[in-house]
Amino acid sequence: MSNLPDVEQLKLEENHTSAEGAAAAPVAEDVVDPWTVTSSSDAGIDYDKLIKRFGCSHIDAALIERLEKVAGKPVHHLIRRGIFFSHRDLHTLLNAVEAGKKFYLYTGRGPSSDSMHLGHLVPFIVTKWLQEAFDVPLVIQLTDDEKTLWKDLTVEQSMRMARENAKDIIAIGFDPSKTFIFSNLDFMGQCPQFYQNIIRIQKCVTFNQVKGIFGFGDSDVIGKIGFPAAQAAPAFSTTFPFIFGTDKLPVLIPCAIDQDPYFRMTRDVSPRLGFPKPALIHSSFFPALQGARTKMSASDTNSAVFLTDTAKQIKTKINKHAFSGGRQTLEEHREHGGNTDIDVSFQLLRFFLEDDAELERIRVAYGKGELLSGEMKKIAIDTLQPIVEEHQNRRKDVTDEVLNLFLTPRKLNYEFTVKLPGDSANGAEGAKKKGKDKKAAKPN
Amino acid sequence: MSNLPDVEQLKLEENHTSAEGAAAAPVAEDVVDPWTVTSSSDAGIDYDKLIKRFGCSHIDAALIERLEKVAGKPVHHLIRRGIFFSHRDLHTLLNAVEAGKKFYLYTGRGPSSDSMHLGHLVPFIVTKWLQEAFDVPLVIQLTDDEKTLWKDLTVEQSMRMARENAKDIIAIGFDPSKTFIFSNLDFMGQCPQFYQNIIRIQKCVTFNQVKGIFGFGDSDVIGKIGFPAAQAAPAFSTTFPFIFGTDKLPVLIPCAIDQDPYFRMTRDVSPRLGFPKPALIHSSFFPALQGARTKMSASDTNSAVFLTDTAKQIKTKINKHAFSGGRQTLEEHREHGGNTDIDVSFQLLRFFLEDDAELERIRVAYGKGELLSGEMKKIAIDTLQPIVEEHQNRRKDVTDEVLNLFLTPRKLNYEFTVKLPGDSANGAEGAKKKGKDKKAAKPN
Repeated sequence: MSNLPDVEQLKLEENHTSAEGAAAAPVAEDVVDPWTVTSSSDAGIDYDKLIKRFGCSHIDAALIERLEKVAGKPVHHLIRRGIFFSHRDLHTLLNAVEAGKKFYLYTGRGPSSDSMHLGHLVPFIVTKWLQEAFDVPLVIQLTDDEKTLWKDLTVEQSMRMARENAKDIIAIGFDPSKTFIFSNLDFMGQCPQFYQNIIRIQKCVTFNQVKGIFGFGDSDVIGKIGFPAAQAAPAFSTTFPFIFGTDKLPVLIPCAIDQDPYFRMTRDVSPRLGFPKPALIHSSFFPALQGARTKMSASDTNSAVFLTDTAKQIKTKINKHAFSGGRQTLEEHREHGGNTDIDVSFQLLRFFLEDDAELERIRVAYGKGELLSGEMKKIAIDTLQPIVEEHQNRRKDVTDEVLNLFLTPRKLNYEFTVKLPGDSANGAEGAKKKGKDKKAAKPN
Repeated sequence: MSNLPDVEQLKLEENHTSAEGAAAAPVAEDVVDPWTVTSSSDAGIDYDKLIKRFGCSHIDAALIERLEKVAGKPVHHLIRRGIFFSHRDLHTLLNAVEAGKKFYLYTGRGPSSDSMHLGHLVPFIVTKWLQEAFDVPLVIQLTDDEKTLWKDLTVEQSMRMARENAKDIIAIGFDPSKTFIFSNLDFMGQCPQFYQNIIRIQKCVTFNQVKGIFGFGDSDVIGKIGFPAAQAAPAFSTTFPFIFGTDKLPVLIPCAIDQDPYFRMTRDVSPRLGFPKPALIHSSFFPALQGARTKMSASDTNSAVFLTDTAKQIKTKINKHAFSGGRQTLEEHREHGGNTDIDVSFQLLRFFLEDDAELERIRVAYGKGELLSGEMKKIAIDTLQPIVEEHQNRRKDVTDEVLNLFLTPRKLNYEFTVKLPGDSANGAEGAKKKGKDKKAAKPN
């Protein structure tokens, strides 16, 4: 606690700078697309508005309850806390699961830097939870082609970043027997069905449509115009014949909400190609240290806690850059309390502190002014340092051999089990019984 | 000769129909792009105008002479007769050859029917001549992706047609040790460098550019917009690492002039990717039987002599459909003579009758009215029947095993020899001597 006043002071200066920075570039309305996420509010994107604009649905208490019932266990705190806040057709997918249908998971990442940051972990953490809860295969796309097209990166640079990022993804703890990771620039040349599905998709989508969905214009390069099909293709199970044969399976895609435009397009195309529409669950954005007006970005070093940061770097970054919801003076803070909605350190805890009771205690204490901004930062630092350190330790074990295994097109090991409502309570007997009843009923 | 009057009568009727058909759909100006070839003139496309419009160059007598000198043998009659009439940078390529540089050949075909017709043979025949004259490797692209995108064809249908067409191409007599044939929908999944080069190209070309070059619009599907990069990529030797390693070699592309837009785009991109601009030689169009206002088309059965046609079908098609340059009555024809410029049977002979003296004899006799249209048709029939029959015999030998060999990515067998001006006259000694002189000169 001895250096808290200093930190507090630092925080106040930083707040000031941050607030000015934001005021200098005012944004009238939230912008959310695959390339830009900005908000005019310190509390970040207005997700209720976004849900309306995108035409997706809230993940409400009833859906969470149903998900827990079908999964047979409590949902991950990222879902419980509303960080995954929106979905498309999750009910339909759960219906299919209950009817004994198979499905698979698909998520991905655009590798635009050698190192991933904390925010990048979010969709993967929930994907891992879903994979374990439902025991299903998972495909992870690294869009190094996209990054080559959009960024000042060569094919070689993007492919190297894809391999580096794949190591971080593997370090999250995915099961190699159930998980296939692929770089587009590599996998395209290993599996003709990938390109064939891209052509099928690209035959269904006009320039007018991608103009409307992604805002492409006449001066955009043709690679960008065609690319959405490459992100859509893994939502069609025949893209992976070595895993799924020719089966046209349902898919669930966990992703940040900014990726939704790709899958709106995909969902339009699916029925035309004889596939079920992909179901989605969307996460909100992981805030930049400077505040929730924008998301954490790998291209802005000071905005992000990287998975390569040392404990000291994490401490310095949070102390120096994490936007605070505290008051201007210690006295004011003690009297009126801080605002956890805009306090980035608290938001980091919402994502990464597993203990619900402790999180609530912190929220209330900060709101009452009992907990100071410096103290909040310290809790965030103490929470994140071991998470990053453990990640680094696991990443050390990801040898090139392990990496190459994940990147090799191969049969995955999975078995689908029929799950019926109430399975978690009744066990498998409920399903068996129902089956027997049906059989018994037929002869009559 | 006994049935000539009948045939003559048939011809007159046909002419009438053809002339009417053409008059019913008048075309103000020649249209030449990869999807449409139409002319308002019975003599066909005005190639002089086209050369100006496209900005390419005439293959003139001096260039033919130079080509023969460097190749060390007389050019193929398709070049000598001006059927290959235009080029880009052929002088530059010959300079490179003379300087001892390697190059390769690239041509292709869009497989939109199971059977190819006579016109499809033309670029391949000259390609084969070039391959043998220069002893260079050859890559042949089958754009089954393009056909899927443009036609009412599924991926599976286009891929099947690609295999059928490949058999016809092989039957022309290409050397399997120097020739690689590939279907885009298949090869894309066998060689990551193909897709990687496509992305590199697609990063260099905007929608505005393809709009200008190909006339694409906002309602075109995104597959069409991206496709030109797939046709451009084989002009970059690194697309075939198993043949060329990482060498950035010059390429010569023999093709019909309607494919030039693709390679204008390619030539714009080449220097940006560090490759030499591809050189091209362009053929004129093989006329439809109904006349040179349009080209022979596989989708119009009566417009074309197919490589699967029987001798009887060839006879019937030419007698019934081949547009004649003869006069309305026998008397008029005898008096004023016929017009070989618009007579399709004579044009077929220009493409396929090897004997220059005999061709000239026929041209003069027809112009004087000594040769009747029925007789001209008989000569065309007698010339084409054995060509098609021999092709069919060779095609029978193209087993799936042979086909699969050509389609397998593999090292090709080639050796490049330094050719210097005058080699054909002086033999290799000229080159050696020059080399010796240089060496001898150095120590001084």
